[in-house]
Amino acid sequence: MKTIDLLIEARWIVPVEPAGVVLDNHAVAVDRGRIVALLPQSEALATFAPRERRRLDRHVLIPGLVNAHTHAAMSLLRGLADDLPLREWLENHIWPAEGKHVSAQFVHDGTRLAAAEMLRGGVTCFNDMYYFPKAAATAALEAGIRAAIGIVALDFPTPYAADADDYLDKGLAVRDAMRDESLLSFCLAPHAPYTVSDRSFASVLTLAEQIDAPIHVHIHETRHETEESLRVHGVRPLARLHRLGLLSPGLIAVHAVHLTSEEIALLAAHGCSVAHCPTSNLKLASGIAPVTEMLAAGVNVALGTDGAASNNRLDMFQEMRLAALLAKGISGIAEALPAHQALRMATLNGAKALGLDANTGSLVPGKAADICALEFDSFSLAPCFDPVSHLVYVAGREHVSDVWVDGRTRVESRRLLDVDESELIKLAALWQNKICPRDVM
Amino acid sequence: MKTIDLLIEARWIVPVEPAGVVLDNHAVAVDRGRIVALLPQSEALATFAPRERRRLDRHVLIPGLVNAHTHAAMSLLRGLADDLPLREWLENHIWPAEGKHVSAQFVHDGTRLAAAEMLRGGVTCFNDMYYFPKAAATAALEAGIRAAIGIVALDFPTPYAADADDYLDKGLAVRDAMRDESLLSFCLAPHAPYTVSDRSFASVLTLAEQIDAPIHVHIHETRHETEESLRVHGVRPLARLHRLGLLSPGLIAVHAVHLTSEEIALLAAHGCSVAHCPTSNLKLASGIAPVTEMLAAGVNVALGTDGAASNNRLDMFQEMRLAALLAKGISGIAEALPAHQALRMATLNGAKALGLDANTGSLVPGKAADICALEFDSFSLAPCFDPVSHLVYVAGREHVSDVWVDGRTRVESRRLLDVDESELIKLAALWQNKICPRDVM
Repeated sequence: MKTIDLLIEARWIVPVEPAGVVLDNHAVAVDRGRIVALLPQSEALATFAPRERRRLDRHVLIPGLVNAHTHAAMSLLRGLADDLPLREWLENHIWPAEGKHVSAQFVHDGTRLAAAEMLRGGVTCFNDMYYFPKAAATAALEAGIRAAIGIVALDFPTPYAADADDYLDKGLAVRDAMRDESLLSFCLAPHAPYTVSDRSFASVLTLAEQIDAPIHVHIHETRHETEESLRVHGVRPLARLHRLGLLSPGLIAVHAVHLTSEEIALLAAHGCSVAHCPTSNLKLASGIAPVTEMLAAGVNVALGTDGAASNNRLDMFQEMRLAALLAKGISGIAEALPAHQALRMATLNGAKALGLDANTGSLVPGKAADICALEFDSFSLAPCFDPVSHLVYVAGREHVSDVWVDGRTRVESRRLLDVDESELIKLAALWQNKICPRDVM
Repeated sequence: MKTIDLLIEARWIVPVEPAGVVLDNHAVAVDRGRIVALLPQSEALATFAPRERRRLDRHVLIPGLVNAHTHAAMSLLRGLADDLPLREWLENHIWPAEGKHVSAQFVHDGTRLAAAEMLRGGVTCFNDMYYFPKAAATAALEAGIRAAIGIVALDFPTPYAADADDYLDKGLAVRDAMRDESLLSFCLAPHAPYTVSDRSFASVLTLAEQIDAPIHVHIHETRHETEESLRVHGVRPLARLHRLGLLSPGLIAVHAVHLTSEEIALLAAHGCSVAHCPTSNLKLASGIAPVTEMLAAGVNVALGTDGAASNNRLDMFQEMRLAALLAKGISGIAEALPAHQALRMATLNGAKALGLDANTGSLVPGKAADICALEFDSFSLAPCFDPVSHLVYVAGREHVSDVWVDGRTRVESRRLLDVDESELIKLAALWQNKICPRDVM
C-alpha cells in the first residue's frame, strides 16, 4: 500500500484525455500536488493509503477549467456600461474609468475578486492581460489559482507605463522576480494591432523568443479593426502579424471573429491558438467567430470569458455552453461542437495555448492535480442520461462543489477556503463608490 | 392603517411597467393575492399594517417570469439525445421514446419536475404544449404555478389520442372541467404546420374563437419546414396560416426563426405574438430568429425555454441573457435588445401573448402578486452599478431567493415550499431507468 496525500472517489470522471472517455466509479490518486493514478474505486483502496479521502458519490470530476483570455481586475468595472458598441464602450467609458482609477491597488483588489469568482466556478488557471501585472500575480498567488500573467504592451501611456519600452521593461522585471512561482507563467501581451506599432511588435517578438513565452494578443475582433488596418497598414491585422513574424505555436489570437478561410488556414499552418470569447463577442456586437471552420482546419481553439466588463461573468460553464450552441446555430449542423469537444476547449486546449499542457488541462498521471468537481444533486439536473451532456447543457458553475489547484483544496463543499466573502463584497463596494459615487448597495 | 396580507420591502424593484423604471428602497403591498400598491418603504409602513412583512434589503424584485413556450413533461427526457439535428432528434429519439413511455403518469411526473425547476428559477407562469393536458394541469395546480395549458392537436395518433378530433375533444373536456381554476388558462395548441392539416387548423380556429383562447403553434422553426410547405401546400407555413385565417392577436408563433421582412410585417399587422426560444433554436441548429427586426416592426416578442429535451434547462434567465446577446451579435448593434427590454420580453410580453397581461407580467396595482426576488449577495455579483444590467448579464436563476404566485409564497429563502426535492430526484431516476435502463445515478 502506497501512502498518498489525497484520494478523490467520484461517480464519474471525465479526464478529457483520452477524448470522449467517461469513467464510472473511479478515483483520482494525488500525491505532492500531482495526479499519480486514475483507477476503479475498488482497486484504488487496495493500492493506496490516502492521508485524505474524499467520497464524491453524486459528482463528476473534470480537469480544472482554463480561462484562456481575461482582464481579471476589470471585475471592478462589471456592468459599468452595458449595451454599447466596442469603440464607444472603450473610448467613452472603460478607458476614462481606467485612466482615473487603475492603480496597483485596483489591480490587486480586482484580481482578488476575479480569482475568487473563477475558483468558485471551477476555473483553476487564467490567462490575464492587464496593467500592473505584479499586483495581478500577487493576487493570484494569494488566491492559489494558476495564472499566466501578461507582460502587457501598448503604444500609449497609462497610469502604469509611459511607452512600449516602459511596459515591456516593467513586465519583464515582474517576470524575473516571480519566475520561480510554480503557479505562475508569463505571456507577452501586446494589446492589439490598433494599439501596438510594428516596432513594438518586433520588441515583443524578440522578448517572447528570449524567454520562451507565448504571445497573447487581441486580433480581428471587429470588422472596423480589419478595415482600419487595411487603410493604415495596407493589410489586414493577421497578415501584418504574419509579416512581422509573429505567427507560431506561441501565438494566442484572442477573438478571431472576422476571418477569411485563407486566414483560418494560415492560423492552422502556423500552429496558432485562438481564444474564443463568445459572450464578449456577442455583447459588444463584434460578431460570431467561425469556430467550426477553425476546428475543422486544425486550429487549437480555447475559450475565454474576456473581462467582466464585457461579459459580465467570469463563468467558463457559460462560455462552454454558448460556444457549443453558437457553433450549431451558425453552421446549421446540430452535431457541430458536441459536448465533449466543448469541454476539451475549456480545459486542454486552453492549457495547450498557454504552453501548459504538460502540466494541466486533463486528468492524466503526471500532471498537476488541477481538478473541478460538480455535484449533480439538484432536481434541475435530473434525470441524467449523459454526464458530459449535462456538464455543458444543464449544469452551471453553481453546481461546482470542490476545486483543487496543484493538489491543494481551494473550494470545499461549495465554500471558498481562506476567503472572507463579505470582505470581498465590501471591497467591491468601496471601488464602486470611487468609480461612480451613487447607489452603492 | 390598512391591514394587508403581505408587505415586501426590497432594495430595488423593477416593475417593468412603466418601462425602464427602477425603484430604490420601495415596497410592494399585497392583499388577497393582488398587488395593492408600490410605494417608498417609509410610506408603506405608515400606510399598511401587514400580517407578514418580508425585508429583502439586498434584493431586486421583478415580476415572475413567463415562459411562453415549453413542453414541461419533457423534463424527463432532459439530455436523452444531444448534438443531433431536429428531424433526427425528433424521429429517431424523441418520438420513439414518447411513443413508448408517454402516459398520464409520465406527464404528471414530468410536469411536477418541470414546475419545481421553473418556480425555483423565478418562473411563475408557463405556456405548455404536450399530451395528457389534464395531468399537466393537475401537476401545475399541485405546484402552485400559473399555467396556460395547451389543448394539443396533431393529425397522427399517439398514446394520448387517435386523431385531431380526438385530441381536441379530450383537450376541451379538460378545459371545461378545470376552467374555474384561477391559476389555469387554456390555449389551442396545434403542434405545427407539418403535423396539422388544413381541416384540423379550421377546427382549431373555430374552437379558439368559441372559447376565446390563444392559438399556440410551432412555426418557421427550420428552413426545411418552410421548403416542405412550399412543396406540399404551394406557400410557406405562415402564408398558409394566414390563408386559413389564423393570424390575429391570439396567435403565438413559436420559434419564427426563418422570416422574410414581409412575413415580419404580416405578424406585426395582425398583432401576433412570437415566442422566441433562442437556446433551442441554436441547439437544434435551426438558426437565429430576427428578433431585432421583429421588435422594430412592433411584433410582441416573448421568450420561451422550449422543452428540457432541447435546451436542456427550463431557465428563463438563460434565455433572457442569450436573447440579449444574440440580438447584438447578429445585428452588429450593441445597443440592440438592452437589458430592460430583455426583462420585458421575459415577463410582460409573455403575459400579453397569453392574454394574461391584465393579471400578470408586471408589478402594477390590481395585478396578481406574481413576484420573483433575487438576492444580490454574492461577490460574483459585485460591484453592482445597475441592477437591471445585473439581472440580465450577471445574475442567474441561482440567485432567485423568493417567489410568490398569486400572493402565495412558493420559494422562500432559496427553498421550494411544499416540495420534497429528494423525492423528485428519485422520481426522475425511476423514469430514467424505464427509458434507458443503464447508468442511473
